[in-house]
Amino acid sequence: MDLKELEILLTQKNYAALKKELEEMNPVDVADLLQSLEIHKALIVFRMLSKDLAAEVFSFFSIDMQRDIIGLITDRELKDIIDELFFDDMIDIIEEMPANVVKKILAHAKEEERNLINQFLRYPPDSAGSIMTIEYVDLKKDMTVGEALSHIKGTGINKETVYTCYVLDKNRKLEGIVSLRNLVISDEDEVIEDIMNTDVIYVHTHDDQESVANVFIKYGFIALPVVDKENRLTGIITVDDIMDVMEQEATEDFQKMAAMSPSEEAYLDTGVLTLARHRLPWLLLLMISATFTGRIMLKFEELLSSVVILSAFIPMLMDTGGNSGNQSSTLIIRGLATGELSIRDWYKVLWKEFRISIIVGIFLSLINLLRLIYIEKVAFIIACVISLTTVVTVISAKLVGGILPIIAKKIGLDPAIMAGPIITTIIDALSLMVYFGIATALLGL
Amino acid sequence: MDLKELEILLTQKNYAALKKELEEMNPVDVADLLQSLEIHKALIVFRMLSKDLAAEVFSFFSIDMQRDIIGLITDRELKDIIDELFFDDMIDIIEEMPANVVKKILAHAKEEERNLINQFLRYPPDSAGSIMTIEYVDLKKDMTVGEALSHIKGTGINKETVYTCYVLDKNRKLEGIVSLRNLVISDEDEVIEDIMNTDVIYVHTHDDQESVANVFIKYGFIALPVVDKENRLTGIITVDDIMDVMEQEATEDFQKMAAMSPSEEAYLDTGVLTLARHRLPWLLLLMISATFTGRIMLKFEELLSSVVILSAFIPMLMDTGGNSGNQSSTLIIRGLATGELSIRDWYKVLWKEFRISIIVGIFLSLINLLRLIYIEKVAFIIACVISLTTVVTVISAKLVGGILPIIAKKIGLDPAIMAGPIITTIIDALSLMVYFGIATALLGL
Repeated sequence: MDLKELEILLTQKNYAALKKELEEMNPVDVADLLQSLEIHKALIVFRMLSKDLAAEVFSFFSIDMQRDIIGLITDRELKDIIDELFFDDMIDIIEEMPANVVKKILAHAKEEERNLINQFLRYPPDSAGSIMTIEYVDLKKDMTVGEALSHIKGTGINKETVYTCYVLDKNRKLEGIVSLRNLVISDEDEVIEDIMNTDVIYVHTHDDQESVANVFIKYGFIALPVVDKENRLTGIITVDDIMDVMEQEATEDFQKMAAMSPSEEAYLDTGVLTLARHRLPWLLLLMISATFTGRIMLKFEELLSSVVILSAFIPMLMDTGGNSGNQSSTLIIRGLATGELSIRDWYKVLWKEFRISIIVGIFLSLINLLRLIYIEKVAFIIACVISLTTVVTVISAKLVGGILPIIAKKIGLDPAIMAGPIITTIIDALSLMVYFGIATALLGL
Repeated sequence: MDLKELEILLTQKNYAALKKELEEMNPVDVADLLQSLEIHKALIVFRMLSKDLAAEVFSFFSIDMQRDIIGLITDRELKDIIDELFFDDMIDIIEEMPANVVKKILAHAKEEERNLINQFLRYPPDSAGSIMTIEYVDLKKDMTVGEALSHIKGTGINKETVYTCYVLDKNRKLEGIVSLRNLVISDEDEVIEDIMNTDVIYVHTHDDQESVANVFIKYGFIALPVVDKENRLTGIITVDDIMDVMEQEATEDFQKMAAMSPSEEAYLDTGVLTLARHRLPWLLLLMISATFTGRIMLKFEELLSSVVILSAFIPMLMDTGGNSGNQSSTLIIRGLATGELSIRDWYKVLWKEFRISIIVGIFLSLINLLRLIYIEKVAFIIACVISLTTVVTVISAKLVGGILPIIAKKIGLDPAIMAGPIITTIIDALSLMVYFGIATALLGL
C-alpha cells in the first residue's frame, strides 16, 4: 500500500480494509507511511493498529514523531505501547524524550523495571550496555531439547531473538549457547548440556560499541551475549542494532575526518543553525592555526619579493603535501576503526609509509622537475628547489599522516580527528619551512 | 586454546587432545590460529579437522593461505573441501584463485553445478547476485508446520540459514516467507499458507550491493531473498555477508575520498609497491591540476610583488575554502551512500548549504577582520580584502562541495571521488581568482 491508497481508504473511512492492509506490511514501512501523513490523520491510523504492531511501528518513528504521538495519546495508550516495546527500544526512547515524558513513562513502570531502566541509563553512551536488550531466551543445561523447544514456544514471541539461546546456571552465569537450528535438528530427548557450545564469545557491558561491531563482523554472529564483571549474563545485542551502530560509527568518522562535530541526525532533518554550529568551531580553529603559515610567509617576505615566482608554486606544494598526508592518515584511521591496526603496529606503519613516500615522492618530484623545465620553462635552479621540496614534503606528510592517528589513539583521543584538515594545516607550515629553507640554501640568498 | 598451547600439543604429538580442542572452537579462531603457524605445521593440523570444519575454516583463510593450502593438499582433499563449502564461499574462492586452481575445482564439479558456477561468475561484481548463496530452505505453501519442521530437520544442517524459509510455487516463484520462530511457535498442524508473510521484501540479482545493505539496515533483516527478472528465487543473502559489504563499502569510500584507488586487502598485508600504485596516479593528477593555481598566481605577479603581504594570507584562505567545501561534500557523499539523500534532493542541498555558508562565512570573515586589524596589525583595506574573500570563498566552496557529488552520481560516477582533494583543487583556483579580483578592485591596482 502506498500513501495514495492509504489516503483513499482513510477518506472512504474503510477502516477494516485499511487495518488489514497495514497488519500485513512490514512495520518499518508502516512507520514510513504514517510519517508522511498529516499528524492527526497519522494518529487515527496509529490507533487502529494492534498493540504489538503499534509498539513496533512506534519504535521506528523519528524522535520528533514519537514526541508528537506521545503528546496526543492518552496515558493508558502510552502504557500499552511501553509494555510492548523491547527493552532496548524503550531505553532509546527514554534517552531522547523530554523530562516530562520520561516521568510519564517511568510512572507506568513497576519498581523492578524502574530499577532496571535506571541501571541501563547509567551505561556509558556507545558502550555494549547502552545498546543491549534483556529479551533473550535462557535455558538450563539439564533441560532436554523437547523441553527447550516448548519453553521457546511459550515465551519466544516476546524475545528479541530466539535463534541463539543462552544456557545459564542458577547464578545467571553463562555456561553455553545453543542455536535454534541445533535444537530443531537434534532429537527431542537429547540434553542441552550435550549439544550446547561452551566456547562462548561474549562482550562486557562497558566494551565500546565499535569493538562489539568488529566482533560481529569477524564471526558473522546474529546475536552476542553481554556479561557483567562477574560473568553474569546481563543482556544480548542483536545484529540489526549492530548494523545501525556500524553505519552510525562510519558516518561519525566521516564527519570527524572532515572537521565537523558528529551528529546522528539525517542531513535533511537537521536545521541550518545546527549544521552551522557543527562546522564553525572547527573551521575557526583551523583558520586561526593557519596564521602560523602566514607568519612563516611574512618572515620570508624579502625572499618572496626578490624571487616572486617562488610564491606561484606554494599552492601546488601545499596541496601535494596535504593530499599525501591525507591518504596515509585515512588508511590508518580506518585500520584502527576496523580493528585491523592497533597502537603497537606504529613502527610497521612508519616503516611502510616511509618506503611508500620515497617511491611516491621521488616519482612526483621527477615529473615536477621535467614539467617545470620543459613546459613551465622555469629556471633550472628554481625547478630544483621545487622538486626537492616536493620529495621532502611528501615524505614528511606521509610520516605525519601515518603516525598522528596512532598517537591520538594512544593518548585517548579519537584517531578520526587526525585527518585531512589538521594534517593539511601541519603540512602547510612544514612544507613552507622546507621550501624556504631549500630556496635560501640553493639560491644563496 | 592459544598458539602456545597448540604448539605444545603438536610437539607432544597429542593429536587426540588437539583435535578435540579445535572442534570446540569457533572456526574463525581456528583459521586465525592456523594462519599464525608455519605452513607445514598448519597443514598437519588442518588435515586433522573433520570435513565440515575443515571447509568452514578454509573459507575464513586469507587468499594467500587458501592458495598455499590448495598447493599442498591432494585433489581428493580439495574435492572434499569444495563439496562442503557454501556456494557463495566457493564462488569467492574461485574468483580469487589462479586459473590452474579454478580448473582443478571445476573438474570436480558436476555438470549442473558447473553451469551454476558459470552463471554466478557472470553477475556483475558488487551486485546482489555476486554475494548471494543458494543454500536456503524452500517450503511449499500446502505443507503443515510439522512437515516444514521435519523438512528443516532433514536438510537444515547444510543451509546457510534456516531462520528464514522461502515458500515457492512450482515455478520457483516466491510466494511468501516464514521465519523459523513462527514455525516453532505455531501448532504442528497449521498450514504454511496461513502463517506465511506475503509482503515479502526482496532484491534483484543485478541490484548494487550497497543498496542491498541499505535494505538490511532499514528493516533489520537477517536474510533477504534475491529474485531474477521473472521473480524466481535465485538465491539469498545473509546478514553476515552484508556486514562485510558494509565495512568494505565504507572503507572504499574512505579511500576514494582521500584520493586513492580502493583496495580490499588489509593495510599491513598490502605491499609497498601496490600501496604506492594506489596513491600515485591521484597525487599526480592533483599536482598537475594545481598548475592552474600557479598560472593564476603568475598572472598577478605584479600585484603580488607590489603588495607582498597579500601572499602571506593565501594559504589561510585556500585552507579555509578547502575545509568548508570538504565538510559539505563529505555530508552529501555519505548521505548518498546510505540512501538518505538522492539526486532529486539537489535543490534542497544547495539551498541548505547556501544558508549555512552565509552564517559560517560571515562569522569567519568578521573574526578574520578583527584579528587582522587588532592582532596582525594589517592595514584596514588589506583586512577588508581578506575578509571579503573569506566570505565569498566559503559560500562558493560549500555550494561546490554540496553539488559536485550529486552531479557525479547523476552522470554515473562514484560521488566519493568528489571529496576533499578534488574540491580543494577547485576551490584553490576559485579563491585565488576571487582574492586577486577583490584586491585589484579595492586597492585600485
